[in-house]
Amino acid sequence: MNLNRKIGNQTINFINPVSISSFGCVVGKKEKNGPLGKWFEHTLDNNYDHEKTWEKSEQKMLQSAMEIALEKKNYIPSDLEYFLAGDLLNQIICSNFTARSFGVPYIGLYGACSTLVEGLILGSMIIDGNYGQKVGVATSSHYETAERQLRFPTELGVQRAMTAQWTVTGSGSFVLENQIDQLMITQGIFGKVIDMGISNAMNMGAAMAPAAADTIVTYFKDTGKKPEDIDLIVTGDLGNIGRVLCKDLVQEEGFDISSNFTDCGVLVFDPSQDVHAGGSGAGCSSSVLAGYLLPQLLNNKWKSMLLVGTGALLSPTSSQQGESIPGIAHGVLIEKKVIGG
Amino acid sequence: MNLNRKIGNQTINFINPVSISSFGCVVGKKEKNGPLGKWFEHTLDNNYDHEKTWEKSEQKMLQSAMEIALEKKNYIPSDLEYFLAGDLLNQIICSNFTARSFGVPYIGLYGACSTLVEGLILGSMIIDGNYGQKVGVATSSHYETAERQLRFPTELGVQRAMTAQWTVTGSGSFVLENQIDQLMITQGIFGKVIDMGISNAMNMGAAMAPAAADTIVTYFKDTGKKPEDIDLIVTGDLGNIGRVLCKDLVQEEGFDISSNFTDCGVLVFDPSQDVHAGGSGAGCSSSVLAGYLLPQLLNNKWKSMLLVGTGALLSPTSSQQGESIPGIAHGVLIEKKVIGG
Repeated sequence: MNLNRKIGNQTINFINPVSISSFGCVVGKKEKNGPLGKWFEHTLDNNYDHEKTWEKSEQKMLQSAMEIALEKKNYIPSDLEYFLAGDLLNQIICSNFTARSFGVPYIGLYGACSTLVEGLILGSMIIDGNYGQKVGVATSSHYETAERQLRFPTELGVQRAMTAQWTVTGSGSFVLENQIDQLMITQGIFGKVIDMGISNAMNMGAAMAPAAADTIVTYFKDTGKKPEDIDLIVTGDLGNIGRVLCKDLVQEEGFDISSNFTDCGVLVFDPSQDVHAGGSGAGCSSSVLAGYLLPQLLNNKWKSMLLVGTGALLSPTSSQQGESIPGIAHGVLIEKKVIGG
Repeated sequence: MNLNRKIGNQTINFINPVSISSFGCVVGKKEKNGPLGKWFEHTLDNNYDHEKTWEKSEQKMLQSAMEIALEKKNYIPSDLEYFLAGDLLNQIICSNFTARSFGVPYIGLYGACSTLVEGLILGSMIIDGNYGQKVGVATSSHYETAERQLRFPTELGVQRAMTAQWTVTGSGSFVLENQIDQLMITQGIFGKVIDMGISNAMNMGAAMAPAAADTIVTYFKDTGKKPEDIDLIVTGDLGNIGRVLCKDLVQEEGFDISSNFTDCGVLVFDPSQDVHAGGSGAGCSSSVLAGYLLPQLLNNKWKSMLLVGTGALLSPTSSQQGESIPGIAHGVLIEKKVIGG
């Protein structure tokens, strides 16, 4: 019995079943008013959500998203053997305080907007490797908390560059279990940090595109798959500019993904919403995955999906000190299984 | 064949061999002048280390520590299949930029001062679970970068409370491999977030002690072990105040660890160094482990060690918004094996 899980340079095969048994999400009003609005069941009244601060609102949103996923299965937080979470706030406080409420073993992650996929791969390893049977994974982001921490307080009304992305107010959560179910995570790939020297923090899509392309191309090479072997390749979140760059970079390596490639930051907003290059944030890919992509997999719109979480690993301090923007991208393959079919 | 790795509520048994095949550390001058000074081979000339900023100096230190460990085995960074790292800076930039230099799959972690043990457990899972054969784990902290970000810029000369700990300038790194060797990681335990309502950010040892005690007691209950079954129990970093509190809390649960319990923050500085409650920082436990504890295991001073990494999961923002300090503690059991004995 060959138990080696690694294929090629970076890709991981999960041998034991890892299912996404439940998922939930909460988004803000702007996201509810976007093209995916009808898919989002739980929405904040406003970005304060009856809390005194935006940060407390974001923490509550993350916790609610996880609780929604748990309730669908009649689980309570203490049923989770591990809780893996991350967000964009310094010291990932939304995740920490949610973990405090849950009181279960907690693994804090930071990968900027790639955090969700980082968590899904690690969570899948925990299940696949027999370290546990129920794992919660969740991420969040919030427009006002992210903007004031990473760029400018929104009250300042600073004009945004046309290349800038709009941080999604949203959170998505996932319960992973060791069972065969309709939604299965079957492969994962941790990406390398790639930095092509872009230092404009108002153009993060371009900074992350090379990392996304590298992970997608490496995945094809590792597995021998072709783009048409996967129904949907979806990054989160390159936005409009980064998505096109990524597609072209993958094309240069001989893989044409033009017909089945999209991006969570492109899906979540309409250009009429004045978001410039699209959505971003650790809660963008998680809320789009939980709100729209997984339900559509269940609806048989697609049978397989490579979700590639992309992160810009800068900080205001690194930018102020003249550093360029390192990008990273991790991927998971999610497949729709026909149960008993 | 029962492949289940979980024992009791939270403890993990590694079934396949996970060795610490190499390790390295770099510390600052103050740490070199402390009681463990003779154990630290690599020291910064000063906390700038010929860089323009303290942050760049910390990043270089983290990278150097990992490179030292790799060089001992004649490895190069690209030999690593995964690099797991974290630090205290916002968006963990020291780790991100080190990962950029290495160009290998990267998993960014945040657990404050518990990050090292979080990384060691996840790295051990990767090896034990057959996801890879060589994993690098490293963390760092730096007095000036941490103080100015989390409390006050050191130039201000703000008086420090007697309960405050001194952030260690240091970094420790570890290479994990799937082989039988002298230093083996055999068990791990992820801790729960525990918050007893302490909100004084100048007394983090007290805030973290309940989490450390919970993890230690849970480990004993999960494994059926008694304190005397382990040669050394060492937290990192509760400091003088937190260490005593933790010992008492563990005692209340019926386990007497008074004779074999210490703390990295207690070991690293002498009271004459004016550090008040002792050392702290994500680089404290990693540099003390790599510089002193593992060499002493190799010297047969101890045969087994439970390293419990403790983290205070607050941020300046959470404190300003009136939140108390959530604590967490993760543990790993490291054993000295007699090879061919």
